[in-house]
Amino acid sequence: MAAPFTDRLAAAVQSKRSALVVGLDPRLESLPLAVRRAAEEAAGAGAAPRQVAAEAIRRFDEAVIRLVAPSAVAVKPQIAFYERYGPPGLAAYEHAVAAARAAGLLVIGDIKRGDIGTTAEAYAEAHLTGDAAADAVTLNPYLGSDSVAPFLQTAARVGGGVFVLVRTSNPSARELQDLPVRGRPLHEHVAELVNAWGSESRGACGYSSVGAVVGATAPAELERLRRLMPHAWLLVPGVGAQGATAADVAAAFDRGGLGALVNSSRGILYAFRDPAADDWQTPIRDAARQLRDQLRDAALQAAS
Amino acid sequence: MAAPFTDRLAAAVQSKRSALVVGLDPRLESLPLAVRRAAEEAAGAGAAPRQVAAEAIRRFDEAVIRLVAPSAVAVKPQIAFYERYGPPGLAAYEHAVAAARAAGLLVIGDIKRGDIGTTAEAYAEAHLTGDAAADAVTLNPYLGSDSVAPFLQTAARVGGGVFVLVRTSNPSARELQDLPVRGRPLHEHVAELVNAWGSESRGACGYSSVGAVVGATAPAELERLRRLMPHAWLLVPGVGAQGATAADVAAAFDRGGLGALVNSSRGILYAFRDPAADDWQTPIRDAARQLRDQLRDAALQAAS
Repeated sequence: MAAPFTDRLAAAVQSKRSALVVGLDPRLESLPLAVRRAAEEAAGAGAAPRQVAAEAIRRFDEAVIRLVAPSAVAVKPQIAFYERYGPPGLAAYEHAVAAARAAGLLVIGDIKRGDIGTTAEAYAEAHLTGDAAADAVTLNPYLGSDSVAPFLQTAARVGGGVFVLVRTSNPSARELQDLPVRGRPLHEHVAELVNAWGSESRGACGYSSVGAVVGATAPAELERLRRLMPHAWLLVPGVGAQGATAADVAAAFDRGGLGALVNSSRGILYAFRDPAADDWQTPIRDAARQLRDQLRDAALQAAS
Repeated sequence: MAAPFTDRLAAAVQSKRSALVVGLDPRLESLPLAVRRAAEEAAGAGAAPRQVAAEAIRRFDEAVIRLVAPSAVAVKPQIAFYERYGPPGLAAYEHAVAAARAAGLLVIGDIKRGDIGTTAEAYAEAHLTGDAAADAVTLNPYLGSDSVAPFLQTAARVGGGVFVLVRTSNPSARELQDLPVRGRPLHEHVAELVNAWGSESRGACGYSSVGAVVGATAPAELERLRRLMPHAWLLVPGVGAQGATAADVAAAFDRGGLGALVNSSRGILYAFRDPAADDWQTPIRDAARQLRDQLRDAALQAAS
C-alpha cells in the first residue's frame, strides 16, 4: 500500500516548496494550433472528430505536465473536458493521470461525484483504483455521509484522499451554500462534516486525507474556514482567470505555511494566449513558476 | 429539433399508461452467468478484463431493454457502473443509450453532475448531445444556478431535460438536505429553485422540462414536494430494493395521474435472483410488467 495521501502530499509540498496545483482543463478550441495540426496528422484522414480531439489533448497534456512538473505538486484534470469526447476522451484522461504520476506529480481527479451505496463504490473503484487511479478526487457533499463513506473506505485501502466541496467560488454558490442554518451559513455545517469524515485519516503531518474545496473569492471566509477545519488541506480554486490573487489566499495557509493547495487552470494552461504562437511552451512554464513563487510568498506571509 | 422533453415524456406516459423507469445498474458480479460466459467467448482469450466486463454489460443491457420496452417509458442508466470499466465501459454506456432510443424508450442519464461555467458546458455537451445523448440527465444542485444554466441552454436547443436532486432517499440525506433554513428544511428551498429554473420550459402538457428527484422514503414529504413543485416531473427512486412500495409513491402523482416517474433498478434487473438460472429473462419482463401495473393503480388512487 502507498503511504497515506496526506503524508505524500505534505512531503511533496515541502520538498518542492510549492502549493501549486495546475488544473488540466483541455478545451480543444483553446489548444495551440501546432498541437491540433500534429494530432490531425497522427490520427490520420479517416479518424473520427473525437478521436482527433483526444489525440490533441493527449499531446497537450504531456507537454503541460512536463513543463509544470518542477513547479507544481499536483495536477487536477477536470474530467468533464475529457468526458466531452466519449471513450477516446476518457482514454486521454487515463493518459493524463499516468503521465502526471510518471512525472512525479500527484493527481487530483476533479470529478465532483456524489452518489450512494454501490454506485458510490463503483465511482470510488473507477477513480481511486485501476487505470484512472488519481491520488485524490473531489466530491460533492449534498447526499451526506453515505456518498462519502465508500470513497473513504477505498482511500484508506489504497492510500488515497478526497476533497469535499465546502464553499465554491462561483457567484451562485450562495444560493445553497450560504443559506442560514442555526445562525451560520450552510457551508460551515459542511465544514463540520468534513472534520468528522477526516478524523480517522489524520497523517503524521497533522493533516487528514479528507480535504476541502474552498473558493478564494472572500478572504475573510477563507480565514474562518481555515480555523473551522484545522486538519483539512484546503484546495483553493479561483486564482488567476477567476479573479483572485495569490495574496488573497494567504489565509488558507497555517502558521507553518502548510495546509493549502492553490489551483490555477486557464491562467497557466493558456498563458500563451495566441493559439498560433510559435513558442507556446515557455509561457506555460513561466506562468507556473511565477505562481509557485507568489504562493511561496503568501505562505511565508501566513507564517509571519 | 426534437419536441420538448416534457411533452415527449407526457406522450410516452399516456400512450403506454406507465410511469415506470427502469434503472440500468449493471454490476458484473450480479449478471446472469450465461451472459458473462457468452461475453468471455465473444471477447476472446486475450481480452482485457474491463473489455470483457463491458461486453457482458452490453449484452445484458440489450436484453433488459428489449424485455422492459413494452412496460417502461424510460431507462435510467447509472453511469458509475459504466465508468467503472473505463473507456470500454463508457462505450457500453453509449451503446445502452442508443439501444434504448432504438427501442422507443426515453433515456434519463443518471450522471448527477454539478459543476460550473465551461466545465458544466462540457458536461452538457457530453450528455445531452452526440453519441451519449440522453433525453434528460440528473443534476446535483449544490453549486446553484451556475451549474444548472448551461444544461438548460443545451436542453432548450436539443429538446432535452434535467432532473435536479431535491430530496434523496438515502439515510444520510438529512445531514444537509433537511437542515432547517428559515423554518423549513433546506430541500424545500431547492424545490423553489427548481420551480424557478423550470419556469421557461413549461410544455403543452403543463409540466416543465426541469424535473426533480425526490425519494420515496417519506410519503408525507412526497406530498408536500408535489405541492411545492406543481410543474415539475418528480422522479422517484427507492421503490423495490430500497424498501418503498408502489402505494408509497401515490402522493407523487397529480390528480390526473400524471407528473411522476418511478424508478426501480435492482428489483427489476436482478429479478431472476440466481445468476445461474436458465431462464433469467422472464422474471425481468414480469417484474417490469408487475410494477407498471402497481404504479397504474397508484396513479388512479391519486386521481380518485
